Amino acid sequence: MHAGAPLPHLVVVGGGFAGLWATRALADAPLRITLIDRHNHHLFQPLLYQVATAGLSAPDIAAPLRHILRRQRNVEVRLGEVRDIAPARKQLTLADGTVFDFDCLLLASGATHAYFGRDEWATHAPGLKTLDDALRLRRELLLAFERAEAETDPRARAAWLSFAIVGGGPTGVELAGTLAEIARHTLKNEFRRIDPREARVRLIEAGPRVLSSFPEDLSTRARRQLERLGVEVVTGVPVSEITGAGYRLGDDFVPARTVVWAAGVAASPLARSLGVPLDRAGRVLVEPDLSVPGHPDIFVAGDLATVQSGGRPVPGVAPAAKQMGGYVARVLRARLAGTSAPPPFRYRDFGNLATIGRMAAIVHLGRLKLSGLPAWWFWLAAHVFFLIGFRNRLVVLLNWAWAYWSYQRAARIIFGNPPTDRRA
Amino acid sequence: MHAGAPLPHLVVVGGGFAGLWATRALADAPLRITLIDRHNHHLFQPLLYQVATAGLSAPDIAAPLRHILRRQRNVEVRLGEVRDIAPARKQLTLADGTVFDFDCLLLASGATHAYFGRDEWATHAPGLKTLDDALRLRRELLLAFERAEAETDPRARAAWLSFAIVGGGPTGVELAGTLAEIARHTLKNEFRRIDPREARVRLIEAGPRVLSSFPEDLSTRARRQLERLGVEVVTGVPVSEITGAGYRLGDDFVPARTVVWAAGVAASPLARSLGVPLDRAGRVLVEPDLSVPGHPDIFVAGDLATVQSGGRPVPGVAPAAKQMGGYVARVLRARLAGTSAPPPFRYRDFGNLATIGRMAAIVHLGRLKLSGLPAWWFWLAAHVFFLIGFRNRLVVLLNWAWAYWSYQRAARIIFGNPPTDRRA
Repeated sequence: MHAGAPLPHLVVVGGGFAGLWATRALADAPLRITLIDRHNHHLFQPLLYQVATAGLSAPDIAAPLRHILRRQRNVEVRLGEVRDIAPARKQLTLADGTVFDFDCLLLASGATHAYFGRDEWATHAPGLKTLDDALRLRRELLLAFERAEAETDPRARAAWLSFAIVGGGPTGVELAGTLAEIARHTLKNEFRRIDPREARVRLIEAGPRVLSSFPEDLSTRARRQLERLGVEVVTGVPVSEITGAGYRLGDDFVPARTVVWAAGVAASPLARSLGVPLDRAGRVLVEPDLSVPGHPDIFVAGDLATVQSGGRPVPGVAPAAKQMGGYVARVLRARLAGTSAPPPFRYRDFGNLATIGRMAAIVHLGRLKLSGLPAWWFWLAAHVFFLIGFRNRLVVLLNWAWAYWSYQRAARIIFGNPPTDRRA
Repeated sequence: MHAGAPLPHLVVVGGGFAGLWATRALADAPLRITLIDRHNHHLFQPLLYQVATAGLSAPDIAAPLRHILRRQRNVEVRLGEVRDIAPARKQLTLADGTVFDFDCLLLASGATHAYFGRDEWATHAPGLKTLDDALRLRRELLLAFERAEAETDPRARAAWLSFAIVGGGPTGVELAGTLAEIARHTLKNEFRRIDPREARVRLIEAGPRVLSSFPEDLSTRARRQLERLGVEVVTGVPVSEITGAGYRLGDDFVPARTVVWAAGVAASPLARSLGVPLDRAGRVLVEPDLSVPGHPDIFVAGDLATVQSGGRPVPGVAPAAKQMGGYVARVLRARLAGTSAPPPFRYRDFGNLATIGRMAAIVHLGRLKLSGLPAWWFWLAAHVFFLIGFRNRLVVLLNWAWAYWSYQRAARIIFGNPPTDRRA
């Protein structure tokens, strides 16, 4: 592309927090930038569980990358899936065959679900990473109640009303808390043959406690808040089997038609084509300047990179991805200006928030620890603030106000063609 | 179901305007009602084109039937697809095998696209009747611009930027007008290799004029408004071929990767299982009381029924469907009360509105004829007023205000799994 163009060409793969923040931080840099993403939008992943649980519409938490970057004239956005990277030749190839030459590359294609070698579970226990995942999950959660209503056999009906969320990290906790709220409040009075409040919502964590990235006391408070919302929390036991009929926990096989996977993530498989050492989760072990060992012009940022900061691994969270993106931009700027390189990447931890459900959350900021309603307000304010787009902020606030006043969820609409329904 | 229950059982098939209005009008009637729909939601079809053109989210124009009817204790809502009706046995069967006995039946399953015997066109020219149709169309319209941007061959690129809408009725006009607005305004500055304003948006009507249900002068004004928005209007020539590469109009084959079908509707195929005379479009020729000839306990309403009122056929529009639904409820109430039957169904025509695009519409109410901005305001007020749900009204108004101030469209998000992409 652009044969003979004078400016160096930076290709950014992935329009998530790392890729988009790097791109924006290079707005006036003497570079041609091509941003490639499989989706046409930047996704505000921290609110993805709200789309899955019918609280928000897909467009409320996403914005077209082209639109975000329309005024940044040194960027071209390209919808496409990167199939292969040839680091030595400085080329990458899209699934449609297009080849891009690059001078520098930022690989920020993020993470996907991992089933710890049990890929057959993917069919029965979908995960939550993309809007399509969220819409599939929404459909399955809502359909489960419909199937229970139509079912006449009490055991089959109970299996439709049995929900399990595997993984007690932030996503699992959010999904479990919100699903319990839906069963207890949102669907009240709407069914004639079942009582949705009889739904069993189980959150299963193989480790000793939920939200293990928080201090133990906050973790305990989170568990108590979950239980108050009606979630059954099981810790210390891994799920050993998942089928279309249920899951195995220790010696028990528990009938359940809806199992959600929130347990493991693995780096995007694209990392492998770099031909450099990866960690167990498939992430690239980058240099302190986030470049790839042996390839100083190739950087990896966000969930795809693993790097230490202050002696501890940088967590796979949105603020870390944004900081990495910004850091790569600073390294590139210094190189372009011929000034000295910035000091190694250092993660600034501004705190840790997790929401649990209706008016329940936990917050850990340095010495400040909050839980319950104050934490929830803090969480809400932070998330609305960081959403991209004025309209999205307004609509999300409006939907929240509506949901908390009416106990309703605005997006309880089932769509999606039958081929995507594994239960047809 | 409900063996031995004392109240007569009314089954309503279809939760559109006819079915839902009949059901609500029977709120305190001594009946058990089962409302069966393939979807979990009532859809406000007049705004469906806004979902297709990324102005609104799917949940903004839909509301779960269960939620609408949660307080009406004589109704059960059932998600299901009716496969067969046995009028003599008074039974119907769902696709999942469930059999319902009924004492009375209201069949209101609406219409679907018809390709005038050219069903192979369905692959290349999708229609617009359901939310899934709208989301597919949205995806294809947005992808066409992405493909054009990625295409290097000028002729292939032009084909991606060539859009044809077949059918000059209200849906075709709305889609053409809005698509022209997207190309001219919304996408401005967002692409680097194509100029979206070069997109060719063609509205093709086989008859002599667009919006033929309006008086000729309003029709002419509509055409002028369309042309001002950038739509090329072609009348009097039918499309004779549609392939994945384009369409044939007279002797010309016009390359176009996106063709939308807004030309023909046919009644839901369920009408056939009644075994009674149908009109050419497959609609049931009902009695003046909307019952089926020979089956006084079976009624048909909405787009599935064809009936005369004041010597003219009742049009297939939302107000007519609501009136038919309300009428069937009155007939049933009279029978239950043992009072005399109401006079034959009569359609009250309150007027005819059609929107064309940005600030453009036509209105015909008795002697009142409006076009342009005043008509558009009238159209907007009427549509927001008739939406179900306070939240939906508020969100739709907000999105409209946003769109008309910023020229942006909030839902320009491409999703949908690859299997639904005919262009993968």
